[in-house]
This record gives sequence, C-alpha cells and structure tokens, in this order.
Amino acid sequence: MSGKVSVAIVGANGYSGEELCAILARHPSVSVVAVTSRQHAGKPAGEVLPRLSGVGEFSKLVFSEPAMHSLLGSGAEFFFLALPHGLAAEYAVPLWEAGKRVIDLSADFRLRDAEVYREFYGDQHPAAKLLPETVYGLPELHRDAIRAAKLVGSAGCYPTSILLPLVPLLKAGLIDSGDITVASASGVSGAGRKAETALLFGECNESLRAYGLPKHRHLSEIEQELSLAASRQVTITFTPHLAPMTRGIHTTIFSRLAAGASAEAILPALEACYANEPFVRVSQNLPDTKNVTGTNFCDISARFDARTGMLILLSAEDNLVKGAAGQAVQNFNLMAGLDETAGLL
Amino acid sequence: MSGKVSVAIVGANGYSGEELCAILARHPSVSVVAVTSRQHAGKPAGEVLPRLSGVGEFSKLVFSEPAMHSLLGSGAEFFFLALPHGLAAEYAVPLWEAGKRVIDLSADFRLRDAEVYREFYGDQHPAAKLLPETVYGLPELHRDAIRAAKLVGSAGCYPTSILLPLVPLLKAGLIDSGDITVASASGVSGAGRKAETALLFGECNESLRAYGLPKHRHLSEIEQELSLAASRQVTITFTPHLAPMTRGIHTTIFSRLAAGASAEAILPALEACYANEPFVRVSQNLPDTKNVTGTNFCDISARFDARTGMLILLSAEDNLVKGAAGQAVQNFNLMAGLDETAGLL
Amino acid sequence: MSGKVSVAIVGANGYSGEELCAILARHPSVSVVAVTSRQHAGKPAGEVLPRLSGVGEFSKLVFSEPAMHSLLGSGAEFFFLALPHGLAAEYAVPLWEAGKRVIDLSADFRLRDAEVYREFYGDQHPAAKLLPETVYGLPELHRDAIRAAKLVGSAGCYPTSILLPLVPLLKAGLIDSGDITVASASGVSGAGRKAETALLFGECNESLRAYGLPKHRHLSEIEQELSLAASRQVTITFTPHLAPMTRGIHTTIFSRLAAGASAEAILPALEACYANEPFVRVSQNLPDTKNVTGTNFCDISARFDARTGMLILLSAEDNLVKGAAGQAVQNFNLMAGLDETAGLL
Amino acid sequence: MSGKVSVAIVGANGYSGEELCAILARHPSVSVVAVTSRQHAGKPAGEVLPRLSGVGEFSKLVFSEPAMHSLLGSGAEFFFLALPHGLAAEYAVPLWEAGKRVIDLSADFRLRDAEVYREFYGDQHPAAKLLPETVYGLPELHRDAIRAAKLVGSAGCYPTSILLPLVPLLKAGLIDSGDITVASASGVSGAGRKAETALLFGECNESLRAYGLPKHRHLSEIEQELSLAASRQVTITFTPHLAPMTRGIHTTIFSRLAAGASAEAILPALEACYANEPFVRVSQNLPDTKNVTGTNFCDISARFDARTGMLILLSAEDNLVKGAAGQAVQNFNLMAGLDETAGLL
Repeated sequence: MSGKVSVAIVGANGYSGEELCAILARHPSVSVVAVTSRQHAGKPAGEVLPRLSGVGEFSKLVFSEPAMHSLLGSGAEFFFLALPHGLAAEYAVPLWEAGKRVIDLSADFRLRDAEVYREFYGDQHPAAKLLPETVYGLPELHRDAIRAAKLVGSAGCYPTSILLPLVPLLKAGLIDSGDITVASASGVSGAGRKAETALLFGECNESLRAYGLPKHRHLSEIEQELSLAASRQVTITFTPHLAPMTRGIHTTIFSRLAAGASAEAILPALEACYANEPFVRVSQNLPDTKNVTGTNFCDISARFDARTGMLILLSAEDNLVKGAAGQAVQNFNLMAGLDETAGLL
Repeated sequence: MSGKVSVAIVGANGYSGEELCAILARHPSVSVVAVTSRQHAGKPAGEVLPRLSGVGEFSKLVFSEPAMHSLLGSGAEFFFLALPHGLAAEYAVPLWEAGKRVIDLSADFRLRDAEVYREFYGDQHPAAKLLPETVYGLPELHRDAIRAAKLVGSAGCYPTSILLPLVPLLKAGLIDSGDITVASASGVSGAGRKAETALLFGECNESLRAYGLPKHRHLSEIEQELSLAASRQVTITFTPHLAPMTRGIHTTIFSRLAAGASAEAILPALEACYANEPFVRVSQNLPDTKNVTGTNFCDISARFDARTGMLILLSAEDNLVKGAAGQAVQNFNLMAGLDETAGLL
Repeated sequence: MSGKVSVAIVGANGYSGEELCAILARHPSVSVVAVTSRQHAGKPAGEVLPRLSGVGEFSKLVFSEPAMHSLLGSGAEFFFLALPHGLAAEYAVPLWEAGKRVIDLSADFRLRDAEVYREFYGDQHPAAKLLPETVYGLPELHRDAIRAAKLVGSAGCYPTSILLPLVPLLKAGLIDSGDITVASASGVSGAGRKAETALLFGECNESLRAYGLPKHRHLSEIEQELSLAASRQVTITFTPHLAPMTRGIHTTIFSRLAAGASAEAILPALEACYANEPFVRVSQNLPDTKNVTGTNFCDISARFDARTGMLILLSAEDNLVKGAAGQAVQNFNLMAGLDETAGLL
Repeated sequence: MSGKVSVAIVGANGYSGEELCAILARHPSVSVVAVTSRQHAGKPAGEVLPRLSGVGEFSKLVFSEPAMHSLLGSGAEFFFLALPHGLAAEYAVPLWEAGKRVIDLSADFRLRDAEVYREFYGDQHPAAKLLPETVYGLPELHRDAIRAAKLVGSAGCYPTSILLPLVPLLKAGLIDSGDITVASASGVSGAGRKAETALLFGECNESLRAYGLPKHRHLSEIEQELSLAASRQVTITFTPHLAPMTRGIHTTIFSRLAAGASAEAILPALEACYANEPFVRVSQNLPDTKNVTGTNFCDISARFDARTGMLILLSAEDNLVKGAAGQAVQNFNLMAGLDETAGLL
C-alpha cells in the first residue's frame, strides 16, 4: 500500500457515502483506512454495503463509530464527511484543528457568508470562523484554490448542474444575469436513504412532482457563485422536481441573451470554456441523464427559441457522482496532487 | 341496449385508442358498435387489448378494417378518431358529410387557421374548409360550443395542462401575457405505441431528457387559446421533457403578475373559476402525477417566489385520460347531451 | 342516498385501505359513512388521499378516530377492516358482538385452526372463539358461505394468485398434490405503506430479490385451502420475490400431472371451471401483470414442458384489487345481496 | 499504447456491445482499434454511444463497416463478436482461419453438438467443423481451456446465473440431478436494443410476465454444462420472466438433496468452491440484483425448506456484465494472459 493516500469516510452508509466507498475502493492511489457509521459500527463493510463486498480492500474493512480520537488515530490524511449539514461541522472543526484535510459533502462549508447560511438553513452557522478558510468545491470554477485548501465544501448536486452551464456565460457577459429561471428534476436518491413515507417506491414510482418551492436551500450556494461570476448580485427562480428514477439530475435553464450577444455564440462559448475539462461534455445533442449515470460527467447543451428570444440551457449529471461523491473525489484528487481524473474515468 | 348511444372507435389499438375503449366499455350510456384497426382487423378485441378481455360488451367485439362504408353501416352515431394527424381528416370529412358527429383526438381540427397548421405540421391542411365548423375540445373553455358541435378537435395533452392554469388568469388580467415560459414532463405513453428504439424500456428507464426544442407542434394550439384568452397574440417558450413513467404530465409554468395584480389573488381566482368544474382540482398542495393517473382530473396549484417576483403555476394530469381519451369522452358526453361526468368518475 | 348500503372503512390510509376507498367511492350501491385512521383523524379524506379528492361523497368525508362507539354510531351496516393482523381482531370482535357484518382484509380470520395461526404468526390467536363462524373470503371457492357470513376473512394476495389456478385441478384430481412449488413476484405496494428503508424507491428500483424464505405466513392459508381441495394435507414450497413495480403479482406454479391425467386436459378444465366467473380469465396467452393492474381480474394460463413432464401454471392479478380491496368488495357484494360485480367492472 | 493488447469489437451498438465498449474503454491493458456497426459506420463512437463520449480513446474512435479485410487490417489481435447468432459465425470462421483469437458473445460456439444447435436454434449450425476447437466461456468452469482457446463461446446470461450455483453441487453429488426447476427474471436489456413494440417502456413498465415457455434456447447450453457436471444427461424445467428493470437477472432454483446429503452442507460447499473466485460471492444473504448491476459479480445464496425438503438456490447477476460483456472480458483476460480481473473490479 506504500505510495497510497490514506483516507477515511465519515458517514459511509447513506447514498453519497456508499458511492464514495464505491469510487474510492477502485481508486488506484487511495487506501481507505476507516469507514464510519453510528448505526452500523462493528459490522463488516461488505455486509452494510453488499454491493461492495469483495471489492478490493473493502473485503477487510469494518465500520467503526465516528469517534474523533479513533478517526485521528486511523492514519488517514484526508477525511470525507458524508453527514447531514450541521453535524458535518462538528467533525470538520477538530479535524481542521488537528491539521487534517477535509472534503465535506454537506452544505456546511459551501457558503462564504454565515448570514446566508442562517437564512437558508435556519440555524446559526456551526463553525463560522472557519468559513474564510474554506473553498467552494467545484473544480471547474475554483481549481487552484481547491488544490491548496485544507477544507473544501464540495458543491451540491443541483448547484453543479446549474453553475456549469451558467457561469461561463455570465463571466463572458453573454447572458442577462437579471432574468434566470431554472427547472430541475432529480432522481429519488437525491433525498437520501431516509425511512420516510414520501420516499417509498409506491409513492415515487409513476410520480412526478415539484417540491420545496419557492426557496430551496441550494439557492444559497447557486446565487453565491452566480453573483461571483456576474460581479453583481444574482437572484434566480429555482424549481426542483422529483422524478421516478434512482439517479440523475436534469436541469433546464431559461435566460435571456445580454444586449449585443448572439445566440450563435452560446454553444461555442461553452465548448471553448470546457474544451480541456475532463468531466464536462458540451454538445449539440440534448442531454439525457442515462448517459451520465454512474459517471462523473456533466453533459451540457443549448437551444435558442427565436420566437420568444429565450435561451434554453440544459444539463444532465449523476446526482450521486458529479453531484456528490465523484465531485468530492475530484476535489480530493486536486488537494492530494493526484491526477484529477484518478478513479473517475 | 335501448337508450344507449352507439359509438365507433377508429384506430383503437394505440394508447389513446385503448384508453378510449377502457372508458367506453364501462360507460353507462354507451354501446360500442365498432372498433377498427388496420393491423388487427379480424381479431377479437379482447385479444388485441387483453386488458379489456371480459369487460362488458368488449367480450364480443371484433376489430374491423376502418372502411368508410362499414363505419357508416355500423349504426354508430358518434365516431372517435384516434389516428395520426393527417389521416384523421381523411375519415372526418366523409363522416361529416354523412351527418355523423365526430370527436377527433388528433391535431387535425384543433386549429382555426390552416396556415398555422401548415407552419407547425409541415403539410397543407387536409380539410381546411371544415375548420370554421369545428370546436376546440377543451370543455372548461368551450363547453357550449362543444355541445352543439358536429366535429370537435379534442384538446391535446400538453395544451390541456398548460391552458387550464393560464386561461382564467389571462382572462382576468392577473398575469402578464408577454412573459410565459413552460417546462413540462410527460410519461412515455405520450409518444404513442410506436416501435422506435428511442422508446424502448432500456432507453427511457432511468432517463430524463428534453426533446423537440424549441418549437413543439402543440405550441400552435396552446398559443391559439392563450391568445383568445388574452385578447392579444401570445407567444410562449415551451420545453417538453420525457420522464421514466408510463403515464402523467407535470407542467410548471413561469409567469409574471400583471401590473397591479397581487400574488395572493392567484389561487383564489383559480379556485373561483373551477369551483364547479368536475375535473379540475385547485389546491394549495403541489400537484403529483400519481394522484391523477387513471383519472380525468387536472390538479392545479400555484406558488409565488417573492425573491424574484415570479409566479409559478403547476399542474398534473394523466396524458391518456384528461390529456386524450377522457377528454374525448367528456366532449362526447356534452355533444350527446349526457351527464358530462358519465363514465369518467 | 336511500337504497344504498352504509359502510365504514377502518384503517383507510394504507395502500389496501386507499384502494378500498377508491372502489367504494365509485360503487353504485354504497354510501361510505366513516373512514378512520389514527394518524389522520380530523383531516378531510381528500387531503389524506389526494387521489380521491373531488370523487363523489369523498369530497365531504373527514377521517375519524377508530373508536368503537363512534363506529357503532356511524350507521354503517358493513365494516371493512384494513388493519394489521392482531389489531383487526380487536375491532372485529365487538363489531361481531354488536351484530355488524365485517370484511377483514387482514389474516386474522382466514385460518380455521388457531394453532396454525400461532405457528405462522407467532402469537396466540386474538379471537379464536370466532374462527368457527368465519368464512375464507375467496368468492370463487366459497361463494355461498360468504353470502351468509357475518365475518369474512378476505383472502390474501399471494394466496389468491396460487389458489385460483390450483384448486380446480386438485379438486378434479388432475395434478399431484404432493409436489407443488411456487415462485411469485409482487409489486412493492404489497409490503404496505410503511416507512422502512428497504421499501424506499432507491432500494426497490432496479432490484429483484426473494424474501421471507422459506416459510412465508401466507403458506398457512394457501395450504389450508389446497388441502381442502385435495382432501388431504398439502404442503408446498413457496418463494415470494419483490419486483420493481408498484402493483401486481405474478405467480408461476410447478406441479406434476396426476397419474392418468393428460396435459391437454388442463387448460380446458380451467376454462370450464371459470367459464361463468366474472373475474377469472383463462387463456392460452401468458399472463402479464399490466393487463390486470387496476382491475379485479385474475388471469390464468398453463404450459406443459414435455421434456420434463412439468406442468407450469401461471397467474397475474393486482395485489391491491383482486389481492385485497377488490376481493373485499366482491365479498361484500355477496354478503349484501348485491350484484357480485358491482363497482368492480 | 505500447504493451497494450489491440482488440476490435464487431457489433458495438447493441446493449452487450455498448457494455463491452464501456468496459474496454477503461481496461488498463487494452487498446480498442476498431468498433463496427453496419448501421452507424462513419459516425464517431461518442455520437453513437454518447455515454462513452470523452472516455479515453473512445473520443477518437469512429465506427466502421464490419468488412473482413478492414477487420484483418485493423491490427487487432482479439475480436469480440457482439452479433446475432448465425451472423457471428460468418465472422468467426475467417477470423479463425486468419489465426485471430475470438470471443463470441452469441450462441454460435457455446454448444459442442451441432445437432443440439439445430434443435434449439432451428438452423443448421453455420460452422460445425469449428465446434471441436471451441471452449464454453464460463471461466469458473473452464478456466484452463479458455486460456488456451482460440475461439471462446462466451456463456449466456441465464446460463451463468443457473450454472454457477448448480455445477459445484452436482459435481460434489450433493443434489439430485433429476429434479431441477428454475424460475428466472431478467431486466429488459436482455432482449436487446430492438425496435419491437413488446419492448417499449409502456409495455414493460409495471409489467411482469413469463415468456418463451417451455423451451428457451438457453436450455441447450445449460443442460450441456449440467450434464458434464453430473456425468449424466440432465434435463431441467426453465421459466424465464421479464421484469420492469433495465439490467439484472435473478434466478431461483428448486432442487432436491441427493440421498445422504445434508442441507447444512450446501452453503459451505458453495463457499469452499468459490472462496478464491474473484467474481462469485456466496453469502447467507438473499441475492438482490441491485447489488450486482454494473459489476461482474454473481451473488449466490441458498435456503432449505424443511417442510418440503426443497433446496432453494438463488443467484443474481448483471445480464450485461457477468451475463455478457464482463464475462467476455474475463474470458479475454484469461486468453491474453492478463490478470483475470483487469478492467472488471
């Protein structure tokens, strides 16, 4: 195992945590030294996550309690936190103080402004003093800062699908930042592995519904990054929907061309921006979630409705990969100085 | 069977045709005297549509060739046409000339303007001279005209889900007709029972994708009716998506309040408009397709995003029932002087 | 409402209870006077079951606490119990003592032998003294007894799909009762509307698995009725599976021809037995759950494997209709002296 | 690319072919030098298979016509044939004659006996003279022969799920070879990417049905290998079902213990047999297709029904991976002298 980077996964039995395990189990430069779960401590990893039974070192791993002393004693240099927001910060702070590097999949370290956190998440930020030290973990936007960061707040699922099409166009001044409307649909795994009636097969199958209108929590990070890109405050309308599939997010964005911008310039601008990005595929073809599930790709396209002057941007990603675990590993690869695509292609 | 209205179903083996059969087989005041299918002529109805085997008179029906002389000789007073556009008109014209009453489920008789037909469907209208005689078959909008009509172009699936929320608000001047954007998602049955690779289970399951952007054919009838309601030409952006479910359409509409209108007035206005409608349910709860599949209901709700000033209207219907066969039967009930809900509740 | 039979539904918010409400709301001879749910008492029925909002008298119903005095005071003559086993008996006993007629959808009154109940359900039977008074509620087997019964234990979902193909063949001595093996697959609604992780969309979608091997509780009623039919003790192997669909049970039965019986006699024997049954369809075509979902039909077919001498019987039903609520209403129709198919075709 | 093995994939646009491409695109020791498709010749691979766009060398590959001279000139040493049976042999023969090594995913080279081929496939075997040279490509059974083979008939999907549980028990004399019955269910991708009405989403969703009874073509190879294991002719009953999922096969096998064998010995015997196999996981837990989809694992378990003396063996695999493309690559790895798990874990 010499030459491998030792990592721990805290909260490994949710959908994002399981996907992290699946990716890291096959990562050529990683050794997973600890997986934790309050509920499953003491059980072999292959029993809690039968999908991973017999896959490399997971055959020998046992879930442990997420106790800080044992985490610190595990030998891990990097810690992935796949925990609910609020709880994640409780782990991030002592790990940070111990000099460890942390990739947090929750919302706790995605926002620069503790007030915005309070507005959208309802609670005082649990570790506001760390916010200046953190980096928003969307590699296509903040690659260099992520490389150097000790604590990365890995970008959320809906935000990734919205920011990747919009940010380059806002930066280039090609679209009007004042009139952006988004309709997204997510697979049910996006709601987590929670024993709730509304998430039962019988409630989600043959069902399509909007939820969480009009102020979904992800708006906070979306608008933070859009505002950075546009160099002015951007506020958008965002409508998430739940679709009867396990994985995948499809996003349809409505916006207006900036004065003087041409519709023909949009797709080439996106292609140019992402020409060298390993995980963003810009194409004339309309994105389809089934082309990205199980991968770390985000597929992007655009259409212009000449009848109404509306620009329509579309994207598709796997909410558990590019929208969660894959993105976290992409961030980790950057932080650890590895090939950014290691374990992800 | 005395006292029953005799009907024929032309093109009964597609999804809409089968749903028509299913509804009419249970309709208390209807006798189905002919079901036709070029492909299945000569086969017992219960063999072509095994779901309906043993259901009332379908046990004895046999599919016949759609020959005009046998249709005219069938004794049917009403004819449902569940055929592709273009082909439907070939049947409607002689039936009309023979004094029969026709409910057409295709797009052939939904538009008042043959030029619009040509723009959106690509062909010369096959029976333009009949257009002045036809009625757009959305009972909530044109009930009285439908009662008297000899030829009704039953409203389409997406249009129904878009028109029912918007028309009352446009008529009341509560929203701005100049800025309407729609994102809809349909179950796969909306594409018909066609042997196409793109509609295979393996291509549609775990898949969400937009299609037909930016100029879907249904825009023609949607804008015709919105313009009527607004008393000015209305042009909208419409983005249909395919979702991994058999039935159901979910529609999310983005619009702006008219000057002086209040967000609080929207839901009450919809409730007032539809208080006595048997098939439109307005509620504070967000619509969910699974609550309407297999029914003739359209569920409607609304939200206002105070951060952006955006009004969000939402609706759900079964594309094969309120979006096709149920609507056709509702039109028929009106035309035949029956209880409008007969066979539909 | 004069001339209608007044009924109450106790436990109306599970999947079977909801389906009962859906059927009874459209039943021409029934007035639902009470629907109960501990969890939802006080809420309008249309809010708890949005699918039924606006459907007939459900528009006015409000869920009540399942208190015995209010049930007895409701005016209901018939009571449907859609409760967990054990709990059902707590309601059945006082209702019985008050002279009411009860259709129980649980397992509490399906078995004649309290010892068998204890063996399969783990508890002492909660009302053993009532067992001699009860009738096994499978109309095709016990129609006359059901008509006269005060307390019917409506047959279970898997048992219905297994008994309908097998009982006529055992009675006719056409198959060997000593070598019967069954593989069934059920939609997820069969597990009830329970907030359990294993029933989440993300756990059931794209998943097929056996469960409850080798001694599923339904074996008790299956073997009771098979033994009655064969006039000797019958013991079978039964393997239930969970399939990624909301509704439907498909059953495949392996058995051997009795000495002297011919394979060609099997399908005709089934056809003859069920020729006049309104809800059993025997056909040469292989059953498909999608042809029966939403209906009270059980479709049956048979194949003979000449290479191995194995007779293969197949059936399909909707677990919530013929397997639960529809069957309960069919039993009710018989008990109330109504047309057996009322509300069910 | 030095040190990599050059391979070609003939017929790369079906589901198995696409999965082959997906696996080989990530295989560390393989260079794909040609992908062919009659239908898509001339198109970039990333356009035909958008899922693989941007994945390694697939970014640069273009589909070509499957012409023999260009295949032979492609530089490929190994050829994967993902073609319909019958057609596969037309390619295998000249490739064989040219000294190339071939992994055929069709049924053309799985049977040792051309007569059995004719019985089950209806045609004269297209290349009977090659049969003595071929090896049945199930590595767990024929590893050494596969290593040396020039032409491997990679084992089928149902057969793999049936043979892996049964063969060790037959070899060990633990079960009775004379009484084996199998019920399997497959995801819809097993039927191929064919534009047939019966495979539409609307026909397969919410549907479970048996098909192809009683003499499925796969019986030929299943019985060939079971007979080899039992050293006597074995004939079984096999009932395939179609389940509403894209991928996965679940198999339930009913058999009887051999005289003197104990039920307790079964699971340990399977565990011992597969202890060192990288892709077979034997466990006390019941297999679930979702634990194996996207992987090359076959999960196996067993239960004994003491009431009937029936042994129940269960297995789950991904029909496109261990049942097709993964197995083909596992065979290839052996033939090419690579690590057997390369590209597959």
